[in-house]
Formats: sequence, C-alpha cells, structure tokens
Amino acid sequence: MTAEFDLIERIAQRVRHLENQQVDLGIGDDAALLDVASDQHLVAALDTMVDGVHFDQQLSGQDIGWKIVAVNLSDLAAMGAQARSLLLALTLPQGDQAWVDAFLDGLSAACEQHQVALVGGDTTSGPLTVSITALGEVPKGAALRRDGAAVGDCLLVTGCIGDAALALRLQAAGQTPTAPLLTALNRPQPQLAAGVALRGIASSCIDISDGLLADLGHIVDASGVGARVDVAQLPLSESFLEFAAGDWQLAVTGGDDYQLCFSVDPSKVSEAQQALAGVNVTSTQIGHCIAGSGVLLNDNGKTVMLGQPGYEHFV
Amino acid sequence: MTAEFDLIERIAQRVRHLENQQVDLGIGDDAALLDVASDQHLVAALDTMVDGVHFDQQLSGQDIGWKIVAVNLSDLAAMGAQARSLLLALTLPQGDQAWVDAFLDGLSAACEQHQVALVGGDTTSGPLTVSITALGEVPKGAALRRDGAAVGDCLLVTGCIGDAALALRLQAAGQTPTAPLLTALNRPQPQLAAGVALRGIASSCIDISDGLLADLGHIVDASGVGARVDVAQLPLSESFLEFAAGDWQLAVTGGDDYQLCFSVDPSKVSEAQQALAGVNVTSTQIGHCIAGSGVLLNDNGKTVMLGQPGYEHFV
Repeated sequence: MTAEFDLIERIAQRVRHLENQQVDLGIGDDAALLDVASDQHLVAALDTMVDGVHFDQQLSGQDIGWKIVAVNLSDLAAMGAQARSLLLALTLPQGDQAWVDAFLDGLSAACEQHQVALVGGDTTSGPLTVSITALGEVPKGAALRRDGAAVGDCLLVTGCIGDAALALRLQAAGQTPTAPLLTALNRPQPQLAAGVALRGIASSCIDISDGLLADLGHIVDASGVGARVDVAQLPLSESFLEFAAGDWQLAVTGGDDYQLCFSVDPSKVSEAQQALAGVNVTSTQIGHCIAGSGVLLNDNGKTVMLGQPGYEHFV
Repeated sequence: MTAEFDLIERIAQRVRHLENQQVDLGIGDDAALLDVASDQHLVAALDTMVDGVHFDQQLSGQDIGWKIVAVNLSDLAAMGAQARSLLLALTLPQGDQAWVDAFLDGLSAACEQHQVALVGGDTTSGPLTVSITALGEVPKGAALRRDGAAVGDCLLVTGCIGDAALALRLQAAGQTPTAPLLTALNRPQPQLAAGVALRGIASSCIDISDGLLADLGHIVDASGVGARVDVAQLPLSESFLEFAAGDWQLAVTGGDDYQLCFSVDPSKVSEAQQALAGVNVTSTQIGHCIAGSGVLLNDNGKTVMLGQPGYEHFV
C-alpha cells in the first residue's frame, strides 16, 4: 500500500510540469477535473500494451513509455483531434524504480512533444501491462470518421509504411535493424498535425496500427464501399527498399505504422496534400474507392482480391 | 486478429443498448465522441483489477464485470459527479467466450443501473486484467474534493463499513460468508446519488476503497488538518456485529467498502443527513477534524494515534 502511494507520488512529481489549459484538477484526488470547450467534442480512446504480446525484453522502458503514449495519440490523430490529457493504468510485477523512471522518461518525452498532461490513473501489482486512455478535443462536426468514404474518393496515406514491420522481421531473424527502422518501430510519431490539417477535407480517416490492408478494410466496411490499391504507388522508405525491395505484402500487412490512411473527394486531393505539406507531412495517393466491398490490390496489372482482414490470406 | 475483432463486435452488440445523451459516437471508430455540457467539468477516473491481486478464481466473471464498473463509478461518486461513459481495457489469456459473456453480464448490469454507456476500449491477449476509465460530469465549481476539510468540521460516512473485509477474512479462513457479506464484497454499490446529494454541503469527500483510516488519511493530508474518530460511533452492520463484534480495527482498515467519507461544517450536518436520507442513504457521524495531522482514534476514552496509512501499524 505504502509502495503504491510512493509510486503515485513519484509519478505525480515527474509529470507535474505536463499541464495544459484543459486541466483543472490533475493527479491526487479521486478523479481529474477537465474543461472541454462548449464548441468541442470530447474525444476518448484507449490502447493497451502487454509484456510478451506487444513488446518483449528488447524494448526499453523508455521506448515502452513513448510508444504507449504515441499509439494512443495516434487514435486521436485519426479523428482529427487535438490531444489534451492522459490517464495511465500501470501494472508492474514489482516496484522496479529504475524501470519506472525509464518508463516515465519516455512517457514524459512523448507528452511534452504534444503538450499532453497526465491527469490520473491507477498503479497495481501484477504482470507488466500499460494501458492509456487518451482524451482530446475536436470541433463539433469536424471529426474524421471511418464511415464517410464514397465511391470515387481517392485514397492516400501519410509518410511511409512497412518500416516498423521490417524492423520486427529483422529482429526476429537475429539481425539488428538500422536506426531509422528501429525508430519507426519503437518511437512512432502520432500524426496529430496531419489529422488536424485534414479536417473538412478528408471524407474518412483511420490510423494504420494493424497494417494498411486491415485498417483500410475498416474504412471500406464502415463506409459500404470497396477499395482498389495500386501496389506500385505504396510509399516505401529507402531503408525498406534496401532491405525488403519487392516485398509489398510486408508493407501492407505488417502494422505498427501509425500513419494516417484517408479518403478524399478527387476534387480535394491537392488541397489535402497542400494542407499536409503545410505541417511537413508527405502524402501519397495509393488508390481509390470503388463500388463493392473489400480491398483489391493491383500488382502490376494483376488484380489480387483479399478478404478482411486481408493478411490472413497471405499465410 | 480476427478473434480480436470478433470479440470487439461481440462486446459492441452486448452493450449497444447502453447509450445516453452524452454519446455522439461510441464503439467502432478510432475514438469515441462525447458531448460535455458547457457548464460542466468532465470528471475522469481509472481503476484496474488484476487476477491474483484484486480477485481470484472464487470471483465469478459476472462479479468481476460488476465490480470493475462499481469501483470506477465510486471514484466519480466521491467527486459528486454524474456517471456518463466508460472505456474498457480487457486483457484475456484466451478468448473464453463463456467467461466474456459472464463478464459482460455483470458489466452491463452495473452500467444499466447507473445509465452509463460503454463507448470504447481495447481487447488484448495476456494475463487477465480489467481496467476501466470512467467519465462523468459535475457542474463547474461543485466537485467534492479531498482538500476542503477545515478544523472543526464533522466527519461522516455513508452506510456501514467493514462487511467486505469481513467477507474476505471468512473466505480466507475457509468459511462461507453470509449473503449480505458476500454482496458487500462482490457487488459493491457506488454511492453516486449520495455524492450528488452532498454537492454544496460537504467540504471534502473520498470513497473508502483502501479502508477508512487510509482514505480519511488522504483527506486530512490534502486538507492540512487532523482527525479524531470515535470508534464507538463506527457504523457496523448486523452481520459484522454477529461475526466480528469488537473488531473495529478490521472495519477501519479492511477496505473495499465503497462508502463515502466526508467532512461538513457543524452547521450543515443535519442538512447533509437529510439530503442523504432523501436518496435513501444512511449516514453516521464518526468524528471531527482537529488541528494537527493524521488520524486519532478514540477507543472508549483511550486515544490511539496511528500514522498514515494507518493500518500498517496494526500488523
């Protein structure tokens, strides 16, 4: 019990500087009190990472702290939201002070970068599990949803995809991935600025956590359309081309990209790309929405039909 | 992957009827969209329960589902808030459908009783852990906090304390607790109506999860006062008196009560008790706030000084 209160106090001290105008009462009471502007929707998302499932001993406490924040903020980014506050559920086998400090280093760094406050949570003993609830705001009516894609809309993705999956594959093969690949896997960047830039432009949006095919599958399912993706257009990094040229299946199924995949009316493609360029985010048109259902892949003129979630059919 | 999406769909179908006016977009997108009235603060709390730590095989899936909701809503109750929405982090060793259905039975029953919607969350594989983020509302300026107690304020608790701790002790001794004791332990009732009734009356409030001594300790620490509690005044149930008469130490240290402990100016005690009676909640004056720090216990004229958190000194 004492140990738990010590841990909470330790966390509170470490994150005390992470405040913003939304927080009226942070860590230290039964609940946090937050202010949501009257013209805004509250946006709430939750993601969990479990030792042995989402990470292993190779991932440092710093990286775990960074990544659990990043993957949650990525969900807010996909809605076009601004991030405001986090609640943390931290379950630890023991009060390992050094690990906790490392974890808080990574968590704080991600929070600072995006001006997000840690306002509450719970610490318990048990198998290592970190879960975060991310709270944000989006102007009412402006949220980017999964269900707005229409037949004829163009499909785009931000940044490059596949690097995290490639890093994971190299690690599994006993190789050490290059620094850019490791950064993609362990220090993903939530595309919050991109999401905000796409408000009023994109017709639907999702973040790519389970792989482009699976996540685009969610968009087409929710929107009642199909999609055709041109494999040759997939944005792949120099590192990916160096170590996995031609393996586009890895890029579309690997996951952990935390880029945004979105649809946009053809008349608004250049507006979307300019808005993203304005926040220093590259974007690439990879295909378009078609009548029907599911995701078609066009590989050099050969059409591959995949079910949902797609990648199972590659196994 | 498929299993995860099936599970999410299963949960979504089971809780679809749990909606309220705050929910603009629930399960099924990257995040939920919620409406917070402009005159309200958003209130956010998080509590986790871990298999082998907070419960064991004796606790059914139904009871776990009920209790994880109840303990979270109890934190909102302690703030004087109305409960609105929940996000669920469910980590399961395997997709045990029967257990999940039982868990959702209990969770849904607790949500229905308090008109709370399940709006999102995450399901992962791993050691059984359930974590909930509870979101509610309280009029700005009306929240009950821990730090408002003043010297001279009277201290009260709702209901009875000690029953859950007694049930746990009997179970540990291989005995079967009576039905009322088991209900106290496995089906706690968050005191939401009591919290709302105490708005504008109580000077501070906390819910009793770790035991009266420890939680009252949080009030006096946050408020910069001390407290004197009269052991003879502790509200104990008939069951407690039958099986543990005289063991007031169990009642003040056991925890899991989920009653409210609050302070109130002496001139407002009867107003507080009438307000609580109006929502069918009994309340008992157990002591008052004094100058100093920590919690004094008056046991039949003999004063016992305990540190914080108190119960360690009983060991």
